[in-house]
Amino acid sequence: MRFGIVIVSLALLTAGPAFADAGLNLVMHGSKNGAPPCSSCHGETGAGQPAAGIPRLAGLDARYIVRQLESFTSSTRANSVMHPIASALTAPERTAVAGYFSGQTPPRAKDTVPDPKLIAAGAALAARGDWSKGIPACKSCHAPDALGTDGTVPRLAAQSSEYIVAQLRAWQAGTRHDDPLGLMTAIASKLDADQVAAVAAYFSSQPVNGAPIGAPASDPVAEETTKPVLQGFAPPPENAIPNDDFGKMVRLGENIFQNPQRFAAPYVGNTLSCSNCHIGRGRLAGSAPLWAAYVAYPAYRSKNKHVNTFEERMQGCFKFSMNGKAPPLGSETLVALETYSYFLAKGAPTGADLPGRGYPNLQMPARPFDYARGQKVYEQNCALCHGTDGQGQAAPDGRTVFPALWGPHSFNWGAGMGNIKNAAAFIKANMPFSRGGTLSDQQAWDVAAFVDSHERPQDPRFTGSVADTRAKYHDGATWMYGKTVNGIVLGAHSVPPGKR
Amino acid sequence: MRFGIVIVSLALLTAGPAFADAGLNLVMHGSKNGAPPCSSCHGETGAGQPAAGIPRLAGLDARYIVRQLESFTSSTRANSVMHPIASALTAPERTAVAGYFSGQTPPRAKDTVPDPKLIAAGAALAARGDWSKGIPACKSCHAPDALGTDGTVPRLAAQSSEYIVAQLRAWQAGTRHDDPLGLMTAIASKLDADQVAAVAAYFSSQPVNGAPIGAPASDPVAEETTKPVLQGFAPPPENAIPNDDFGKMVRLGENIFQNPQRFAAPYVGNTLSCSNCHIGRGRLAGSAPLWAAYVAYPAYRSKNKHVNTFEERMQGCFKFSMNGKAPPLGSETLVALETYSYFLAKGAPTGADLPGRGYPNLQMPARPFDYARGQKVYEQNCALCHGTDGQGQAAPDGRTVFPALWGPHSFNWGAGMGNIKNAAAFIKANMPFSRGGTLSDQQAWDVAAFVDSHERPQDPRFTGSVADTRAKYHDGATWMYGKTVNGIVLGAHSVPPGKR
Repeated sequence: MRFGIVIVSLALLTAGPAFADAGLNLVMHGSKNGAPPCSSCHGETGAGQPAAGIPRLAGLDARYIVRQLESFTSSTRANSVMHPIASALTAPERTAVAGYFSGQTPPRAKDTVPDPKLIAAGAALAARGDWSKGIPACKSCHAPDALGTDGTVPRLAAQSSEYIVAQLRAWQAGTRHDDPLGLMTAIASKLDADQVAAVAAYFSSQPVNGAPIGAPASDPVAEETTKPVLQGFAPPPENAIPNDDFGKMVRLGENIFQNPQRFAAPYVGNTLSCSNCHIGRGRLAGSAPLWAAYVAYPAYRSKNKHVNTFEERMQGCFKFSMNGKAPPLGSETLVALETYSYFLAKGAPTGADLPGRGYPNLQMPARPFDYARGQKVYEQNCALCHGTDGQGQAAPDGRTVFPALWGPHSFNWGAGMGNIKNAAAFIKANMPFSRGGTLSDQQAWDVAAFVDSHERPQDPRFTGSVADTRAKYHDGATWMYGKTVNGIVLGAHSVPPGKR
Repeated sequence: MRFGIVIVSLALLTAGPAFADAGLNLVMHGSKNGAPPCSSCHGETGAGQPAAGIPRLAGLDARYIVRQLESFTSSTRANSVMHPIASALTAPERTAVAGYFSGQTPPRAKDTVPDPKLIAAGAALAARGDWSKGIPACKSCHAPDALGTDGTVPRLAAQSSEYIVAQLRAWQAGTRHDDPLGLMTAIASKLDADQVAAVAAYFSSQPVNGAPIGAPASDPVAEETTKPVLQGFAPPPENAIPNDDFGKMVRLGENIFQNPQRFAAPYVGNTLSCSNCHIGRGRLAGSAPLWAAYVAYPAYRSKNKHVNTFEERMQGCFKFSMNGKAPPLGSETLVALETYSYFLAKGAPTGADLPGRGYPNLQMPARPFDYARGQKVYEQNCALCHGTDGQGQAAPDGRTVFPALWGPHSFNWGAGMGNIKNAAAFIKANMPFSRGGTLSDQQAWDVAAFVDSHERPQDPRFTGSVADTRAKYHDGATWMYGKTVNGIVLGAHSVPPGKR
């Protein structure tokens, strides 16, 4: 707003005066080296020009804008217009321009007339992906409300549909290939033309700053059909959820699953969601899908040495993976999650060991897993999203996008994922996100060992002695708990349960 | 024992003296009218002569023996030897002889050498029946430990196998047709020769007075294969129960299901067992089989207006049908029952509405259901087993064989069976026991109305006012609760929950 009034008056001038803000100066007048004013195309506030394919820059993270200018310069984003302009800008000028646009919040520019059906299809794809083609939910990385993350993944809300279509085509054609880990190249290649149009229409239609406070859940369960998962059993589509009291519980269960911090707050002690380990809303084969788990309980578990019901099994998730506390048996939280799982399992044979259950078994690696090699794998493949210190990443509004892999906000030492064997199996099948299977077995083991060699919240079953707790619960070659790594006895200084 | 010593000395005499006991006198010397001494064939203590096909009379209920003498006289049991003997005995003589044999407890007479495999097959049939042919478990009527009931159904334990075979053949051939409701004629006609031999071998091998106190459960889950139920889904055979911790829970669940008074005592407030309403150990289609119920939960129930898990649904059985209290969620009792149900449902599609679920739907009758007509149906078809006052029947050791249908030991007013509609559907499909489908729809409705027009324990949801409780929970034409029958307001004086 602070520039709003100034700009109205500026619009009447053919050549303006210099501004105290270096960024605004460049945007309005261009640079000494001959870069034209950004405002000529992107507008004074960076609202863009949808019809001309000029993107909205307002509100993008400044670091992201800087990286794009670098890409134009190096032509990893091939763009004949932007290449010379970006090349003409000095590093301080790039920072200034980026900082300026990043702080702008103009209204959404008028885009093509939105087709409600197209938007709905895009909303489904954005929220759920299309795992029948290996396409993850866009919002898994672009964050709830499409706000992007701090610097890595761009905000898409209110971006113009023409621009989004153009970029997806650029990834497909290979004319843009500055995407970390090749994620967007891989994903765009799986989108057909209808899907490209749909996601573009959807993101374009979204409000600038996410849903207003007090609005309904920003990521409600939609009514659209989704396709079956990649392989094996196909859970029913979401539009099969009935509009009755049973259906309400299914939807509540799905909401808890996606956003336990909001829908199951009393029982959650970290920033993870169920869908971090059970990808695709618990539907994806090879990522511990709910439908396969549901039909496998009651079952005896060596972890607690008795027959567990499905509800008790889920209590374990809350206690360990969510570093929280177990919702009571019969509580709305557990009943809703059980009802959601039951819905997903519709038609699955009771008691079957379904293909796609859990994570695909991974043999012990040829060479013993190794921290140093794992660190390299992590830096090259994981740090981009999960952070250099495993802290994860959040959207600007604070909501978690990429889960913390260690530290106080991650799963605790009692979680199954703290066992390198389990982590390696999950990583091999599912990481980097949507590109499962691209790491070698050895890489998966090494990086799992690296991740699980960091401190995390204490095992809630802690007996008072790390050695004793290790002997009781972590006595195996694939558990690092109690071992000394980088001079730290893992578990010895970990965050006590419930205190963060 | 009081005759034991006397008899030893008698055996040395060719003609004995008169005895103070009229029965013993007749047994040893015959009757004035020319009936020969019973002991000539049956032995002094009624142990019988297996090889000659002479039955054991010792320990049979006196009323049962009297009835047999009547049958021989009328030739509804065609027997050329017994016909003239029984005809020669006066009514007081019959009573005396019956009373004498009834009180004897000689050891089991030596029968044919038992074949362990044959006995095992017979044990399975005795405990489980063969519902693939509509054959109920023999012990459903002949009682646990085969001790029979008070006067109606004979004790079979230690009876000679030759005699049992002969009787089953007599039912098959129609030369014996004094069976109430034609039950044994119907059942015997479904047994093949191998099954006849097996049950005979099994019962013959059983101890005279049931299992000794402190022995393992008298009706353990055996390892034999059982066949699928009559129609539709086939639960796995019992020998598919694995010998591990999971299998232990399955077996515990089955034991609770068959004998909740022993295995779930804290939660049971009457003499019923789960298998009274869920016939064939929860396997029989059309009798609310567990496998069909298991895959239908979680589900919304109008009874309590929310989505119920399977465990919560079972809590309802304990509160209402068992007139007890709900075992806690997660308790061993509920987990075992759920695990047993899950085992039975193995392979059944999750969420399916399986054929055979619940009781077959029964349309409202042509004429309104009627107490007086129902009473007649009851007297002719039900009273034999369930008692003239609906009190049920027990084995001599007190264990329930035929459940109480009303009164203090039956289900309470909150049970689904208290709704005439449900009771009629159950009765039509399943009663008289093993002869389901033989009553007309009208008869089923009438007798259900008669049964449900009797007082029973209070609904545990009782609000303090019968009218109010009726309005809240029983407001329908098929509930008699709160209505006046024979001058009694049903529910007004019913046994308070928990007090019996």
